[in-house]
Amino acid sequence: MNPRLDEIAPSLIRALHARKRPGDVDFSLGEPTLRPDPRPFDAATAWVREHGCPYTPNAGSTDLRGLIAGYHAYPGMADAGNVCVTVGSEEAIYLAIKTLLDPATDEALVVEPAYLAYPKLCALEGVRTRSVALAAAEGFRPNAAAVLGALRPETRMVVLASPCNPTGRVWPQAELRALADGLAARRGLPIWVLSDEVYRELYFTTAPPVSMASLYPHTVVAGSVSKSNALTGLRLGWLLGPAEVVAQAVKVHALVNTAASTFADRVAVELFRDPASLAAHRPLYAERRGVLLGLLTRHDVPHVEPEGAFYCMVCLPDALSGNSLAAAERLLEEKRVIAVPGTAFGPSGEGWLRLSWVAAADDLERGIARIAEFFAESGG
Amino acid sequence: MNPRLDEIAPSLIRALHARKRPGDVDFSLGEPTLRPDPRPFDAATAWVREHGCPYTPNAGSTDLRGLIAGYHAYPGMADAGNVCVTVGSEEAIYLAIKTLLDPATDEALVVEPAYLAYPKLCALEGVRTRSVALAAAEGFRPNAAAVLGALRPETRMVVLASPCNPTGRVWPQAELRALADGLAARRGLPIWVLSDEVYRELYFTTAPPVSMASLYPHTVVAGSVSKSNALTGLRLGWLLGPAEVVAQAVKVHALVNTAASTFADRVAVELFRDPASLAAHRPLYAERRGVLLGLLTRHDVPHVEPEGAFYCMVCLPDALSGNSLAAAERLLEEKRVIAVPGTAFGPSGEGWLRLSWVAAADDLERGIARIAEFFAESGG
Repeated sequence: MNPRLDEIAPSLIRALHARKRPGDVDFSLGEPTLRPDPRPFDAATAWVREHGCPYTPNAGSTDLRGLIAGYHAYPGMADAGNVCVTVGSEEAIYLAIKTLLDPATDEALVVEPAYLAYPKLCALEGVRTRSVALAAAEGFRPNAAAVLGALRPETRMVVLASPCNPTGRVWPQAELRALADGLAARRGLPIWVLSDEVYRELYFTTAPPVSMASLYPHTVVAGSVSKSNALTGLRLGWLLGPAEVVAQAVKVHALVNTAASTFADRVAVELFRDPASLAAHRPLYAERRGVLLGLLTRHDVPHVEPEGAFYCMVCLPDALSGNSLAAAERLLEEKRVIAVPGTAFGPSGEGWLRLSWVAAADDLERGIARIAEFFAESGG
Repeated sequence: MNPRLDEIAPSLIRALHARKRPGDVDFSLGEPTLRPDPRPFDAATAWVREHGCPYTPNAGSTDLRGLIAGYHAYPGMADAGNVCVTVGSEEAIYLAIKTLLDPATDEALVVEPAYLAYPKLCALEGVRTRSVALAAAEGFRPNAAAVLGALRPETRMVVLASPCNPTGRVWPQAELRALADGLAARRGLPIWVLSDEVYRELYFTTAPPVSMASLYPHTVVAGSVSKSNALTGLRLGWLLGPAEVVAQAVKVHALVNTAASTFADRVAVELFRDPASLAAHRPLYAERRGVLLGLLTRHDVPHVEPEGAFYCMVCLPDALSGNSLAAAERLLEEKRVIAVPGTAFGPSGEGWLRLSWVAAADDLERGIARIAEFFAESGG
């Protein structure tokens, strides 16, 4: 047996979720509750009827690779050769870590609070990780200086997400610019940035999020249609990066699962041929976010206003803030509300709960009221 | 960069394939040219219309896992918990290697000639491999004694395929029994058998192939609907094994790509609910095989009669037998026929070419005639 598997902790979120009972309000989901547009599925089925369902090339169809690259239009990454179509953004993250890092010498620096698959994937690959925490007191504001200050000579990758799961924060252009400048100024081998942009289409700022890939050439991007189009189960994502990195990543991809699904590739071709479809769900999320923020304000629940994604970090009252896992367990037992303890996203999440607000409006209403009640009863 | 990627040689098959010109006869394909039944796609699309396209559980839907386990009905592996639904059998092979072997101490023994992803995946994971060759003089006959004689104390996995790509051989029950007995008689940690059964449904023997999983408890099986149902592009496979092994493999699977496609899961549920659909293409292959064997006999081309899969090893004449790669290149340049050099499947394949006989009957006719001509001109 591979001894590394023993080091991988089971998912806290799935463990909590397993205790869900009928009628519980579930704020733990990491996927949309919206329904996807079925028309791309009809089109893909018609395609299979005509062409069968053969393999795509390992890196995906040239059509789709070109469409994805052209849609993002990141400098130096605008061609099909800059894209590997993957099994969701999860595989893209895996490929980036597996391709770019040498376990013998390299370290990854994860910007926290963060999706816990980053350090777990590094552990699976034998790559050392450290994390750098964004300050809870500043609402987890993205902070280039903090990241730059945490670099070590062996750091070869910085992992960040914008919009961020779990904080909902978006990296502002100025902070990304400062990070790019700081990284570019370092001597020696380049430090890669893995920019997780799986929530790219779900933003509530005036302008769309800026990508680190627009500012810094040593960037690789993980993305997918999972969240933008309520297609988590389609497993269609991409790794976008310099062509020579993508070519190496395709070697790993080809060995690990040959190629992504031809059917999913065709569904995604339909979506990218009409890029407006990638933004179609944004207004629904914006409306739901408005409901959420109204409720949090009305019930006086301290929180970080989400700029993107569909999560919101709420701050535990002092009496509960030392143990967010215990707080989440009590919230579930006493109030039948499932929220994810902040520590599921690293130590810097202690004192917080992550709410996923894709739930229906009346669930939001009931759930936030119960959370407020729970906080009040706990001396919040 | 991960230095292991430099060790992974590019695919010889893809390199040859890239030189294909219009009108060439292509015997290099590793996938069916048949069309899949589109009805399961219609059913899956209807399901998405009703339910959306959310994630399945990491290991696949309980429905599908139960159906797959029940269909195979291997002893001790007949429940949903014995199945992880994967992105094709390729991912199942990856999961088996990644889960069961400790790169620090363990070695895998590959039974050759073999699908070259086995040693490449081991190289990617830092696992040492050796190979044991089945004798070309005996038509690559499966041979338990040869495998048992090649074991070393550090061998923790034997990798075999039945039906075999590239030889078309099926392991007879008596040889599997001898292998099982020999492995069981060894002291110390168990030696795992990775049984690649991706061609399980395509057999031309009287009885279906016997699985090592029926005879030896330390077996894990890789399978998929890719070949049986002409669905290579669906990327739907499975790892079947003891529940505790599958549980560990699911950890890797969850991190590397979260889950297989929900859509593909639904397509596969349709297929397994009507198991006859898994055998539907077999008569077509049997007929094509008859055409092939007739042509090879008529043109006096020495070959190994395929018992399964859709490949046939043909023996190069003496003048060409020292360099199957050069022979394949000349065959392509001089006769416009693409065949895969035997060395693509390990050193034991030297002196042979692999023909994939999924081509249309008139392509078979033209291609075999040209091969015979080429052999004759080369002094065969």
